[in-house]
Amino acid sequence: MGKHTPLVQQLIDALRLLPSVGPKSAQRMAYQLLERNREGGMQLAQVLQQAMQKVGHCQQCRTFCEGQLCQICTHPVRGHSAVMCIVASAADLYAIEQTGLFAGRYFVLRGQLSPLDGIGPAELGLDQLAKQLAQGQVQEVILATNPTIEGDATAFYIAELCKKHQIQVSRLAQGMPVGGELEYVDGSTLSYAFSGRKPF
Amino acid sequence: MGKHTPLVQQLIDALRLLPSVGPKSAQRMAYQLLERNREGGMQLAQVLQQAMQKVGHCQQCRTFCEGQLCQICTHPVRGHSAVMCIVASAADLYAIEQTGLFAGRYFVLRGQLSPLDGIGPAELGLDQLAKQLAQGQVQEVILATNPTIEGDATAFYIAELCKKHQIQVSRLAQGMPVGGELEYVDGSTLSYAFSGRKPF
Ligand SMILES: [Zn+2]
Ligand SMILES: [Zn+2]
Repeated sequence: MGKHTPLVQQLIDALRLLPSVGPKSAQRMAYQLLERNREGGMQLAQVLQQAMQKVGHCQQCRTFCEGQLCQICTHPVRGHSAVMCIVASAADLYAIEQTGLFAGRYFVLRGQLSPLDGIGPAELGLDQLAKQLAQGQVQEVILATNPTIEGDATAFYIAELCKKHQIQVSRLAQGMPVGGELEYVDGSTLSYAFSGRKPF
Repeated sequence: MGKHTPLVQQLIDALRLLPSVGPKSAQRMAYQLLERNREGGMQLAQVLQQAMQKVGHCQQCRTFCEGQLCQICTHPVRGHSAVMCIVASAADLYAIEQTGLFAGRYFVLRGQLSPLDGIGPAELGLDQLAKQLAQGQVQEVILATNPTIEGDATAFYIAELCKKHQIQVSRLAQGMPVGGELEYVDGSTLSYAFSGRKPF
C-alpha cells in the first residue's frame, strides 16, 4: 500500500529531472504543491512550457534570446565592440555581466570540446565564430572557458583560430579554482581572474 | 545588460515556488533545462499540469487519490478496519506506510488546528471524521499528529471526540524529536514511537 498514486509518482519522477533534486526532495515538492499551492504548480507548468518552446538563441552570440538578436548584440556600442569574450555557457555570460567588468561582445559556445561526448567544433558554432573573426571587426579575444581539460582544449583550438586572423588573444588568469566551473566562482575571484588575464 | 530575458526570468521566478529552491538554484535549474533538456522541461510541465488538475482526495480518508476512494479505503480488510490512524498530511501517511507497521485505515487532516491561520475543525474535515466515528466501526484511534503546539491542540480536540463515542484513543509516543515533523522522522524512530504509543 506504501505507494504514491500513479500521477503523484509521475510528478515525483519528473521533478527529479531538475538538477540536484533527489527522491526525498522531489516528493516534498510534489506533496507541497498538491497540498498547498496548486495555483503555483499550474503557473510553473505554463511558464516551463512557454520557456522551453520560445527561448531561442541569439543569432550573433548564441546566448539565450527570445528574438533574433540579444540585448548585448543589438547594443549600438557593445554589439560592434572590438573585444570579444568567449564563454562556455549562457550562465557564464550572466556571471561575467554581474561583475560589470566587461563592456564588449560575447560568443557563447554552449559547451566545450569533448570528442568522447560527440561535442566537436560544429556543435560549438566554431564555423560561425570563424566567420565573425574573419570580418576584421574583432581585434581582441578573451577566452573564458573553464579551467578544465575540455576548457583547455577549447581555448587552445580558438587561440589557433585567432592567431590565424592576427587577433590578440588572452585567457582568464587561473585564479579560478582548477577543475572548477566558472558559473560557481564568486564575483571577486572572477574579477581578479578577469583583470589578471594572460596573453595566450 | 546583466539581465535574464523576460521568459528566462519568469521561469526562474516560477521555479522558486518549489520548496527550498533559492535564486541561485532556480537559475541553475532554468539554464540547465534550457541548455540540455528541453524535452525534460516539457515533460515536467505536462505532468505538473495533469497532477495539479487531476489528483484529488479520497472521499473517505482524504489522502491523495485520482478516483473517489484510495487503495487503502477500497482494500477489503483495511478499508473497514476497527483501528484508525489520524495524520496531519498525506506525506505522513506515506511515511507510516513505509514502515509497514500499520495495517488499519487512516484519516488525513491535511493540516492541524491553527486558529490564527484560519484553520479550524471544518478545514480539517472533523465533521466528516465525527460522522465516521459515530458509525461504530472504529474502536481504536491512533493520533499521529505532529509533536508541536498545533499537533497537540489537534490531538486534544480529536481525543475528546473519541471519548464521546467511547473509542479507545492513543497518541504516538513522543520518541519523535519534540518540535519536529513526522514526515522527516527516520523509519526506526517512527517505528519506536508507533509501538510505544500511550493511551490519551
Ligand atoms: Zn547576442
Ligand atoms: Zn482513502
